[in-house]
Amino acid sequence: MNNPTSPSDSTSCKDPCLQELQKFLGERLSLSKSVREQHGQDESFHASAPPEAVAFAESNEEVAEIVQICVKHKKPIIPFGTGTSLEGHVAALYGGICLDISGMNQILEVNENDLDCRVQAGVTRKQLNQHLRNTGLFFPIDPGADASLGGMAATRASGTNAVRYGTMRENVLGLTVVTADGHIILTGTRARKSSAGYDLTRLFVGSEGTLGIITEVQLRLYGVPEAISAAVCSFNTLVGAVNTTISTIQMGIPVARIELLDEVQVDAINRFAGFDYDLKPTLFFEFHGTESWVQEQAEMVKEISSEEGGSDFHWSNREQERQKLWEARHNALYAALALRPGSKGWPTDVCVPISRLADCILETRSDIEESGMIVPLVGHVGDGNFHLLFLIDPDNEEEELQRYQPLNDRLVERALRMGGTCTGEHGIGSGKIKYMEAEHGDSLELMRQIKRAFDPDNLMNPGKMIPA
Amino acid sequence: MNNPTSPSDSTSCKDPCLQELQKFLGERLSLSKSVREQHGQDESFHASAPPEAVAFAESNEEVAEIVQICVKHKKPIIPFGTGTSLEGHVAALYGGICLDISGMNQILEVNENDLDCRVQAGVTRKQLNQHLRNTGLFFPIDPGADASLGGMAATRASGTNAVRYGTMRENVLGLTVVTADGHIILTGTRARKSSAGYDLTRLFVGSEGTLGIITEVQLRLYGVPEAISAAVCSFNTLVGAVNTTISTIQMGIPVARIELLDEVQVDAINRFAGFDYDLKPTLFFEFHGTESWVQEQAEMVKEISSEEGGSDFHWSNREQERQKLWEARHNALYAALALRPGSKGWPTDVCVPISRLADCILETRSDIEESGMIVPLVGHVGDGNFHLLFLIDPDNEEEELQRYQPLNDRLVERALRMGGTCTGEHGIGSGKIKYMEAEHGDSLELMRQIKRAFDPDNLMNPGKMIPA
Repeated sequence: MNNPTSPSDSTSCKDPCLQELQKFLGERLSLSKSVREQHGQDESFHASAPPEAVAFAESNEEVAEIVQICVKHKKPIIPFGTGTSLEGHVAALYGGICLDISGMNQILEVNENDLDCRVQAGVTRKQLNQHLRNTGLFFPIDPGADASLGGMAATRASGTNAVRYGTMRENVLGLTVVTADGHIILTGTRARKSSAGYDLTRLFVGSEGTLGIITEVQLRLYGVPEAISAAVCSFNTLVGAVNTTISTIQMGIPVARIELLDEVQVDAINRFAGFDYDLKPTLFFEFHGTESWVQEQAEMVKEISSEEGGSDFHWSNREQERQKLWEARHNALYAALALRPGSKGWPTDVCVPISRLADCILETRSDIEESGMIVPLVGHVGDGNFHLLFLIDPDNEEEELQRYQPLNDRLVERALRMGGTCTGEHGIGSGKIKYMEAEHGDSLELMRQIKRAFDPDNLMNPGKMIPA
Repeated sequence: MNNPTSPSDSTSCKDPCLQELQKFLGERLSLSKSVREQHGQDESFHASAPPEAVAFAESNEEVAEIVQICVKHKKPIIPFGTGTSLEGHVAALYGGICLDISGMNQILEVNENDLDCRVQAGVTRKQLNQHLRNTGLFFPIDPGADASLGGMAATRASGTNAVRYGTMRENVLGLTVVTADGHIILTGTRARKSSAGYDLTRLFVGSEGTLGIITEVQLRLYGVPEAISAAVCSFNTLVGAVNTTISTIQMGIPVARIELLDEVQVDAINRFAGFDYDLKPTLFFEFHGTESWVQEQAEMVKEISSEEGGSDFHWSNREQERQKLWEARHNALYAALALRPGSKGWPTDVCVPISRLADCILETRSDIEESGMIVPLVGHVGDGNFHLLFLIDPDNEEEELQRYQPLNDRLVERALRMGGTCTGEHGIGSGKIKYMEAEHGDSLELMRQIKRAFDPDNLMNPGKMIPA
């Protein structure tokens, strides 16, 4: 990594690439140490690697020009939205320029009749839903953080609603991308389906900035349901909760959300958000539809859960109460961190076929118990996706990371053995790059071919996703 | 194109590639003229281009070996399933070997608990559903023909159920692919979602054999709904039918099928299948769910349609009656051909944002009326996708094709102008390759980069999808 200049000598910067960028962007190229450090670190435990400079772009054309300047000087480029990634995606491992698109935050169009919209990549999911509040439409994908929609596309994000509405894979209709040679291209159309050519949209969704920079996103929207009902149900056993999930999915009940919290996580949420849920494995449900259809779905799920030893449903029908419930769920990470004040979080993320979910969680639980550590578990269990949260003491970071690493390795190995994936929604970044070979085998070579074809100089977010 | 040997002199074949293939496959390499001709022609009007030989493969390993032999001799390879494509996909435009995988027709596994299955690429959609009949599961994607699932993946097929269940893009979880250098690779996992690496599955879905040969397909399955109800409703105006569709989608009613037939097509179906529907623009509906939910969906749609001048619903609740109705819809192509006995069909296929559907159909209708020809229209209108059928007299083929071509060009131009695509579900093949530039602009260059990276010698189905 190059040694970046300090803020005080920014005007006398000697790097010709930085000089050219500074000429182009003026004050929107920052060499300040604090800005660079803030941009080299995401929300995870991964070590910070500040870029040499941060470029704040405001248009497709500016992004293209910045990429062209960087390519000319063979300078790496790392895109940055809100910095809420979890696998070291934004670290400047080989130096280079952080391209911050958070200023590209315009909602370009909302097509109410087509249930779609187009946004600049820096628009966040909450900003979009706030903008949509009077249209009767909403955008369902909800990772915990208020991430940028460009970042969510780049990491193929999902969240609690994915069981009903899909992930970014299903909800991105098209993109504007600045390619690694600085061209602005469009992928997809506004048609709901097409058989015309290679699916470039889905190639860029999940590519983590390694193939180009996503600058605009065309998204599907959905009508706000006539009725929404949320419920909480606790179980004496983890198996009861998981089996309820499996039966619900197998019966095709279109539950909008079905989230598992184990007793450790329930305890964390009770303390953090003032709830008094039983300290048991607990499912949070949400049902969307017409009044009677919501009621019918809930009745079917209640019947399943009572067969699996579930408690009575605790309902949250009023909007305010529901929002409090889901806010608690979305704050699960922060609630868990508060179990060990001052700790940093390392969230794991595997996804398995739902028939293997109980096995995978139980094997994992017993592995954790042997370690003697306090590790809460939450899961988007309708998709077979769950997270552990390892709590790391920053004063003893090196040692604690080494203690947790074998647990995570075994978790990934277990998920792969069960036909699953090493990451359901967080992505690869640098943190999971070592699992790519085990998950993909020979098909990894095709990914390398695509990477080389699009980015022959390996300048687009190098060191992420594709192992050298 | 090389001039293939005739069947009688097949044993003295001089081509070293064919000799090597013959040595490997024995009688499963056919040089027979009739076999070759049958394999050089799909169900469309596009000119036949027989391959030099047809190789009948029975395993992944055989496909890999055949590809390796062909690559060594720089011989083009054209994959073949059931030959029911519609844009000349199987024509051997540059000679070469047709790789027929119809013998790879084993259903490898059905995971009832995970709602998925794995099949060899030659399994057809009807074969799969027949196999599933006692499981309570079904596979919904239904192009008119009983196509192979490998072919359906390769052309990103859809059909009448796509409005509810998605297309092959949403329903393929993973693939086995023989790459252009003869390696067998796996894409995807059995997990419902993943953020691990480039989405190779969706890159191969819709790639029409130009990047590799799909030999196995992992598919999503769905529970057979507790209740299914179908209904037919006619309208005084095309606009009334289209507006009913638009409102149904906008209200988020999860209709399973919503199909439009214009009066010409209704007439064709009445004659062909013995129905007596009113000769008016007509919608065919299907609703899936629980008894009461199906009824509620139908009530909502009835209310919309009556506001748009729709007739009473004519119900088909008994399974046999329903099947007859949908068989009639699936035979729309053959019914339409019978309007002009002895004719060949040229089905068009555009897809637009649903807000533009009425405009697109009406402009198209008036364009057709000026031409003075009889052109039936059917549409998967819930997706914004519709087809015209041009009826071609084979005795006057050249002249008639020239008469229809400008109509199709204007239809595509109109769809693109409205934010749509030149093909919703039939694919590009050679027939629509000339529209790729207009639809994709600069992003076509990325497709070319992928093609060159995966298939540097341009041996995989050359002349299809990617313009030279």
